Order: sequence, then structure tokens, then C-alpha cells
Amino acid sequence: MSRESAFIDRLRMMTTHPAARDLRDDAAVLPAPIGYDLVFTHDALVEGVHFLTSDPPGDVAWKLLAVNLSDLAAKGAEPIGVLMGYGLTGDSEWDIAFADGLARALSHFNVALLGGDTVSQPPSDARVLGLTAIGRVPPGGAPDRRGALPGDHLYVTGPIGDAGIGLRIARGEIAGPRKLLKAYRLPMPRLRTGQALAPLVHAMADISDGLLIDADRMAQASKLALAINLDAVPLSHAAASFGTDRAARLAAVTAGDDYQLIFAAPLAAAGRLAAIAIEHKIEIADVGLFSAGSGLTIADRDGVIPAPGRLGYEHGTNPA
Amino acid sequence: MSRESAFIDRLRMMTTHPAARDLRDDAAVLPAPIGYDLVFTHDALVEGVHFLTSDPPGDVAWKLLAVNLSDLAAKGAEPIGVLMGYGLTGDSEWDIAFADGLARALSHFNVALLGGDTVSQPPSDARVLGLTAIGRVPPGGAPDRRGALPGDHLYVTGPIGDAGIGLRIARGEIAGPRKLLKAYRLPMPRLRTGQALAPLVHAMADISDGLLIDADRMAQASKLALAINLDAVPLSHAAASFGTDRAARLAAVTAGDDYQLIFAAPLAAAGRLAAIAIEHKIEIADVGLFSAGSGLTIADRDGVIPAPGRLGYEHGTNPA
Repeated sequence: MSRESAFIDRLRMMTTHPAARDLRDDAAVLPAPIGYDLVFTHDALVEGVHFLTSDPPGDVAWKLLAVNLSDLAAKGAEPIGVLMGYGLTGDSEWDIAFADGLARALSHFNVALLGGDTVSQPPSDARVLGLTAIGRVPPGGAPDRRGALPGDHLYVTGPIGDAGIGLRIARGEIAGPRKLLKAYRLPMPRLRTGQALAPLVHAMADISDGLLIDADRMAQASKLALAINLDAVPLSHAAASFGTDRAARLAAVTAGDDYQLIFAAPLAAAGRLAAIAIEHKIEIADVGLFSAGSGLTIADRDGVIPAPGRLGYEHGTNPA
Repeated sequence: MSRESAFIDRLRMMTTHPAARDLRDDAAVLPAPIGYDLVFTHDALVEGVHFLTSDPPGDVAWKLLAVNLSDLAAKGAEPIGVLMGYGLTGDSEWDIAFADGLARALSHFNVALLGGDTVSQPPSDARVLGLTAIGRVPPGGAPDRRGALPGDHLYVTGPIGDAGIGLRIARGEIAGPRKLLKAYRLPMPRLRTGQALAPLVHAMADISDGLLIDADRMAQASKLALAINLDAVPLSHAAASFGTDRAARLAAVTAGDDYQLIFAAPLAAAGRLAAIAIEHKIEIADVGLFSAGSGLTIADRDGVIPAPGRLGYEHGTNPA
């Protein structure tokens, strides 16, 4: 039995959805959900870029699933299933640990593995792992990134910056609590919260590359100016122990991998947002204001801050 | 502007479907097609494994799309759209030529680019390119690989083996007509034929790894024995000029990349199959017979042939 066969057999064990056809067919087939819009997203992770070679393989599997489910969350969607593109580099122990982690993650989020492809990469190459997630949302119910209106406030679910500190812990640069390492390695997509928020918001996205850069993308896509109040950005207690000054907050809002939601909503929604925060036991913070015009302004209690040279993580320019 | 931005701008120019949200959102959103089953497939190509470094980038883009559409063809599905996972290795000339080829291929097959992800790979790594294709098929209309019945004949659309000779031409091992090189580099998924055949067949798949291995997978998935008549395998005139003896035919049925369809159908369907062959101007050949039991038998006019050690291309064991 080839290495690929052993790995695929492992995937088959976790594939119980009839649409997956036991991973023995060319494609997955399932009835179109009646009375829904479909939501599709595809994100890939590259070893050394989106995860560290030293990250546990099972955690990488979790992250591959979670970052894609986070995109569904940002559209208020409920997951249907996923297809995976997996690069084998000849380390079958890593592959098996990855498969076990994937099984745990799929089970946790109650998502079906519908199909995919395993391919051989040269053994010394950085692993490339792709995943397509398919979800459903009530018709017209998926918020757009481009829909913010002048006068809308920018809200974020919190906390922000935990994963950035967790990455530094994972790299061995600093010591810190396991909670922050976990925020980096095992992000938690805000699926239920996204579904609750979707009907109330004008625009929504997830924070994958950093609060500033993802908020700026929303402002640009909506053709609006955005002012951000740095002091309002929610930090966890664990992150706050590493500092709450301007430098610490700027580090938090330019770090990626938080997978919190950012969204534009009118102030009139504030009461309902507070109710969602209580029901979902999360923080929802008002961190900014959209207005006519263009450009990003950042300020704190001491005044306007020059925008940092790097707003967040941009693939192709910032190797992590 | 980063390299990634330039490439993404190129992709945006070819993205006109509103569901793609101008590639500026976290996900693609479109209404679920009413009265259809959905079909999903994901195939990846790795440089040096599934395509040659010397293959023109535009042809690689065609192939990435075509191999996935071929999976939809095998399920009788009509394409809706695709999502791409693209690894940037720093050769922006290659990327732009790829993007131009992708635009041509999407236009040829009238398929929408709905979204995806571009990621940075280390510059010296083999490119990894993934694509998810989404299609639709009438309810219950997607043939399964597992559905062959005892007494069914195995049919193939032809010709078989052109791409295998084309690969040898591309590698510079032999000289040969451009038509065969094209069969390797620019495979043509049998979309319309697959849709016409789907209601008539008990099982269907496409030939990606070789006629023998893909037919054997169908027999195994259907828990049946299969006897193949090597003399009935359709060869093109161009391929036949390289030989029609047993060795040449065994080479043809163990070569991959043909992207023809194989299917199991009762002899009673033969008349309707002939009509489809005429209407679609293709060859449909009766090359085998399924029966109770297990195992693959290959024979020609001179008798039974020992199964070759390698039935086709298996990822992870046969680097191309």
C-alpha cells in the first residue's frame, strides 16, 4: 500500500457523509439546499508562512479548517462540508497526526469531509494545504465586505492580539501562558456569532491578517474613510499582562490570525449587539467610525497616531 | 503593489460573476440552484509531478481547469464555477502567463472564477495549484463509480493513449505530431458527452491515471470482476503510427491524462450510445465486461495477458 493509500484510508474512516461517496468517486454529490444561498471559500496554508514547521500537525489541521470556517462565519453561513487538497511530503507520521487532528476538528464543528485530492510534493518542499469550505445562508443574508455606510460604527468581537503574542511564544521568542499559544494554534471561528450578527450588519469580514489591514480593506471596498479608536480595542487579560500602552495596542491590531469578526453597523443596532454579546458570552467592542471620504485614521487618548508602515500581514510581502 | 496584488488584479479582470464579489470578500455567495444536486470536486497539480516545468504556463492553467471539469463530466454535471488555490513562487512572468491562460480556459468552458486564495511558496519549491469545481446535475442524476452491475459492458470514449505519447514528446524523449502534444497539455473534458451519457449508465468515471487503473477502481468499487479486451481500445491515427501491437496498446491503457470517460452500461443501451457517439462526433468503444467475482483480466486476440505491474499512475508512488 502506498503512503497515499494509507493516508486516504485514514481520511475515509472520518468520512461518513453519503455525499462523499466514501472518497472513491470523482466528486461529491449532494442535493442543493432549498431556500438558501450557497457560500464558498478556499484558503490555503503554507508551511513556514501560515504555520510553523514546529506546530503540532493536529493543530495545523484544526487551523486549516478553522480559517476557512471563519470566512463562512463572516458571511453568516452555516457550514455544509469541506474538500481538502493535501500535499504529501513523505513524512507519514506527520500525515497521520494531521489526519487525527482533522478528524477531531471536523467532529468539533460538525462538518463533513466531502472530498479532495492528495498529491505528492518533493520531500524537502514546504507543505501546501488547501481547503474549500461550503456553507449555506438564508437568501440575501450574507453580508458583503463592501456594504459599510457613512455613520456606521466599526465593531469587533474580541479579544484582539492574542494570536500575535501566541505566535511569538510558538517561535520561542517569549514565554507566556498556554492560552495565548492556543489562540495562535487553535483559532475558534465565530460561526454562531456570525449567524446572529449577519441580519444586523451592513458589512462583515473576519480578521485573518490583522485588525487594521482587514478594517482598511472594508473601508476601501465600501469607498469610505475610517477612524479607529485604538483605546477601544479589546485586549484579553493575558495579553494585557504583556502591556496595554500604545506600542502594545499597535502590535495587537497589526497582528494576524485572530479570526475575530469585524463589522459595520449603525449605532441603532447597539442594543441588539449588546444582547448578542451577552448571549454568546463574548465581547463586542465599538472601535471605529466610517465616514464619507477615504483613508484610515488611528487615534488614542493622546491624539492621532501616524499609520504604521505595516497594517498587517500581506501574503507575498511579509514572510511570517 | 506587491507581486500578489498584481496577480490578483489580473484575476479580478476575468471575474465578472456577481457571486465572486470582485474577489474582495471572504467568500463567494450565490443562490442554491433550485431542483438540482450539487457536485463538488477538488484536484491539485504539482509542478514536476502533474505537469512539467517546461510546460507553457497558459497550458498548465488550462489543464488545472480541465482536469476538474473532467470530474464534473464524469458525474454528468454542468459547471457552475471554480475556486483556485495558487502558489506564488516569485516568477511573476510565469504567473501572468498562467493568468492569461486561465482567462482563455474559463472563457472557453464558460465557467466563472468565484474565488480562492493566493499564497507564497518558497521560490525554489515546486508550484502547487489547486482548484475546486462546483457543478449541478438533475436530482439523482450523477452516476456513481460504484454502480456497475454484472453483465454491464465497459465503454470508453476515445481515443486512448494520445496524452501518454504527448507526455513523451513534451519530455523530448520522442518526436511526434503537435496533435499528441496537445492531447497531453490541453485535455478536453467531455462535459456535454458526460451530460448525455449520465442517464444511460450504471457507473461512470473519467480517465485521469490510466484506463486500466481507473477501470479497475470502478470494478473494485462495484465489487465486480472486469475483463478488458485490449484490441477494442480505440487508438487515434496519430497514436497508431507509433504502433498498434500489444506493447503499444498496453502503453496506451496504462498512460494517464487522457480525460476520456469510462462507464458501465447494459448492452441494451448500445443503440442509444451509438446515437450519442454520432451526435457528439466521438468514438464510444465497448472494451470490457463486468461479471460477478473480483479481479481484472486483460486479453487480446492472442489470449490472456498477465496484468502489467503498473496499471496506471498512482500519486505518491510514480513520480512522472
